[in-house]
Amino acid sequence: MKEDFEEFRRVAHQAVDWIADYLENARRYPVLPRLKPGELMDALPGCGPEQGEPYEALLADFERVVLPAVTHWNHPGYLAYFACTGSPPAVLGEMLAAALNTNGIHWLTSPAVVELEQVTLGWLRQWLGLPAEFFGEIFDTASVSSLHALAAAREMADPEARERGARPGLILYCSEQAHSSIEKGALVLGIGRQHIRKIPVDAEFRMRADALEQAIERDRAAGLRPFCIVATAGTTSTTSVDPLEAIADIAERHDLWLHVDAAYAGAAAMLPEKRPLFRGWERAHSIVVNAHKWLFTPLDLSAFYCRRPDVLRRAFSLTPEYLRTAEDPRAINLMDYGVPLGRRFRALKFWFVLRRMGRQGIIEALRAHIGWAQELARWIDEDSRFERVAPVPFSVVCFRLRAGDEENRQLLERINRSGRFFLSHTELNGRYVLRIAIGNLGTTRQDVREAWELIQRTADEL
Amino acid sequence: MKEDFEEFRRVAHQAVDWIADYLENARRYPVLPRLKPGELMDALPGCGPEQGEPYEALLADFERVVLPAVTHWNHPGYLAYFACTGSPPAVLGEMLAAALNTNGIHWLTSPAVVELEQVTLGWLRQWLGLPAEFFGEIFDTASVSSLHALAAAREMADPEARERGARPGLILYCSEQAHSSIEKGALVLGIGRQHIRKIPVDAEFRMRADALEQAIERDRAAGLRPFCIVATAGTTSTTSVDPLEAIADIAERHDLWLHVDAAYAGAAAMLPEKRPLFRGWERAHSIVVNAHKWLFTPLDLSAFYCRRPDVLRRAFSLTPEYLRTAEDPRAINLMDYGVPLGRRFRALKFWFVLRRMGRQGIIEALRAHIGWAQELARWIDEDSRFERVAPVPFSVVCFRLRAGDEENRQLLERINRSGRFFLSHTELNGRYVLRIAIGNLGTTRQDVREAWELIQRTADEL
Repeated sequence: MKEDFEEFRRVAHQAVDWIADYLENARRYPVLPRLKPGELMDALPGCGPEQGEPYEALLADFERVVLPAVTHWNHPGYLAYFACTGSPPAVLGEMLAAALNTNGIHWLTSPAVVELEQVTLGWLRQWLGLPAEFFGEIFDTASVSSLHALAAAREMADPEARERGARPGLILYCSEQAHSSIEKGALVLGIGRQHIRKIPVDAEFRMRADALEQAIERDRAAGLRPFCIVATAGTTSTTSVDPLEAIADIAERHDLWLHVDAAYAGAAAMLPEKRPLFRGWERAHSIVVNAHKWLFTPLDLSAFYCRRPDVLRRAFSLTPEYLRTAEDPRAINLMDYGVPLGRRFRALKFWFVLRRMGRQGIIEALRAHIGWAQELARWIDEDSRFERVAPVPFSVVCFRLRAGDEENRQLLERINRSGRFFLSHTELNGRYVLRIAIGNLGTTRQDVREAWELIQRTADEL
Repeated sequence: MKEDFEEFRRVAHQAVDWIADYLENARRYPVLPRLKPGELMDALPGCGPEQGEPYEALLADFERVVLPAVTHWNHPGYLAYFACTGSPPAVLGEMLAAALNTNGIHWLTSPAVVELEQVTLGWLRQWLGLPAEFFGEIFDTASVSSLHALAAAREMADPEARERGARPGLILYCSEQAHSSIEKGALVLGIGRQHIRKIPVDAEFRMRADALEQAIERDRAAGLRPFCIVATAGTTSTTSVDPLEAIADIAERHDLWLHVDAAYAGAAAMLPEKRPLFRGWERAHSIVVNAHKWLFTPLDLSAFYCRRPDVLRRAFSLTPEYLRTAEDPRAINLMDYGVPLGRRFRALKFWFVLRRMGRQGIIEALRAHIGWAQELARWIDEDSRFERVAPVPFSVVCFRLRAGDEENRQLLERINRSGRFFLSHTELNGRYVLRIAIGNLGTTRQDVREAWELIQRTADEL
């Protein structure tokens, strides 16, 4: 099949017009699709085509079959999980990256991939107030970043694991509000659930440092081997921030690897007024901040920072150390610092976002989101039918109807059925809780106001 | 910063014209960049910009700073590693996926992502001749796919690992020609190098089934616990195919998980004339085939197939089993089948490629690549200064000058300095070997001929 490049050019221009319209106004679609499981699968042939098809058929089916099955994360009414943005400059970067299809396995296979990754993660590092010792690299998701953190932590605690296998009995600490990816990462490493300590939290859902230290001492006394603490800056349910300074003290006292999961809230360290919440994270061994959460970059861009790249390399490099000296130290081979060998040119989109928005542009957007979340929190506090169930340090508000879980579940379902807004829920202290997360660049104060009014009206109906 | 959507539209159209020109003729660039390590980093500011910049500046710097640092994997003269293609329909898919930025964490967060992944991997599965029991999902790289295979293998062998931690002494088998990602995956799981058996190969670089079985029996007799065999269909150095039927017999006899790494060559199972080489792989527990290698899809699309999704889910799901019954079985939650939680809409580009090319279009392209590799092998055989050092079952040819390693190294360096072609090398039987891999859609028979003529001329000069 001979490719028709003129035909490609024509449809790609069509696609750009569609994309520009979409990015400017994703509101024309319902934020949540209205279809049953299997509907898309049933709408498509069970077998792929024998002969190639024209581009028209592809774009037509994209509109006819795919779009009605899309949950529109780029919709201004998307207020679920952590709202995020596929911003225009990032889309431009992804277009070019796909065409280049260049792959930064090691330096020579694409200097641009390797070096632009260092440049962009260096810029972000400075904006976050982290020192230059932090080496940065990009993974697809925070789950994968945190898996690397845990593997490096084990390498530090048990350097012989590489040769003779990991020894049993290593103990991992995180709060009971930590993200499930921490537990999943531990399972992959072969650390059983019995060796994961989920430390209790205080009334504001932050890890209790006293309980953490007691647990470590208890385990030590029992002959077990603590090796890693995972603190969270911005938990998934309530965006609470663990007491990072106190935890860093404990990690140092007990010589444990400290990983900070700041996948969502890390972005807010760019704001001087929020920086104090992060005090202590600069003493962590590793940190994850997802640009695809609150830094206006589409999936996938998880920024992983590690203050001990030597340990990371010992854990992941298969090149014997004695072969290294001849190398130019600036020709970094990122394959030596993690599992994936292929490395997509993800840095390009991030570079475009950082430059197009600038530090001030990002700060402005984050401040607006936080401000609207504070306003929403006040509106909730003023309506006696509702209660707010957690502080609002960033852009997520947790609340519930003062009623049973069933009423709250119904409330959520009706809002989500509207097609106008998508909210998510969580469970706190055994109760069903609604969550509103603000994070899309297209979302306005008016959207937040309308979401709240719809919630109030729906509560009236219940 | 207010986004200017008309400005975005204008530059995105400009980018499409650049992309269309590039895809049609990447030859205008040298395939390998001519710069020193650190040059790109030095050319960019050490700090990110305070204020947002205009799109013009982004595109101008893309051309000025980024392009000269790119290794052009999409160049028809790219004959290194495994040559691949960012094909036009896939670029179109990536553009739309970036704009949608929809995320298939679980079914509701994007039915389109989840279901199109099932549809496209189902089509490919049928084209590869694999039975319907194989459940498919997409990861970023084969390294990550194989890590999942090994974790599932451990779950089958040691189901209590999840709770009480992995027991030491599990033994993994692969050939000495297996890809480094297998060893790396094992290290992540905590399986030390002492517990990885690299089975010797025959004269054609295929795992020796007799040596494999002896090793298993020896380990069993020593009280160790064999748990997994990784066979390779298309090794990285020579594209040799391990004897899959004999290995499947052994895996069944010893009740071991069989993973088949077919990252590169798996695509060739679409050809009836090549299918016999793969006989036996349908009995594997898991298989990886990278669409971003020889299926004309840009990074990243690693198709992972697993015949025991129940085991995979046991290894990775954190949702208790008793919560599952209420779910619609067609609303698959892919987060339960692996480490990453976020899931980019990678299936869209793959769907576009499969439809635009059709089964026949792909077969035609693969046959052409294989045919040219055979021709090249003949030309090499006819030039007495050279020797071919491995059979050519697919599109990779391994050869060397009948001279010392140093001469071969110089030959490679001169070719790669030409800017016209990029070749890679490997080591076989302790000797430095040159490798030519054909896999880009833009590569023609004429390119292969010219590469060979340049090699001959360069050999004359040496």
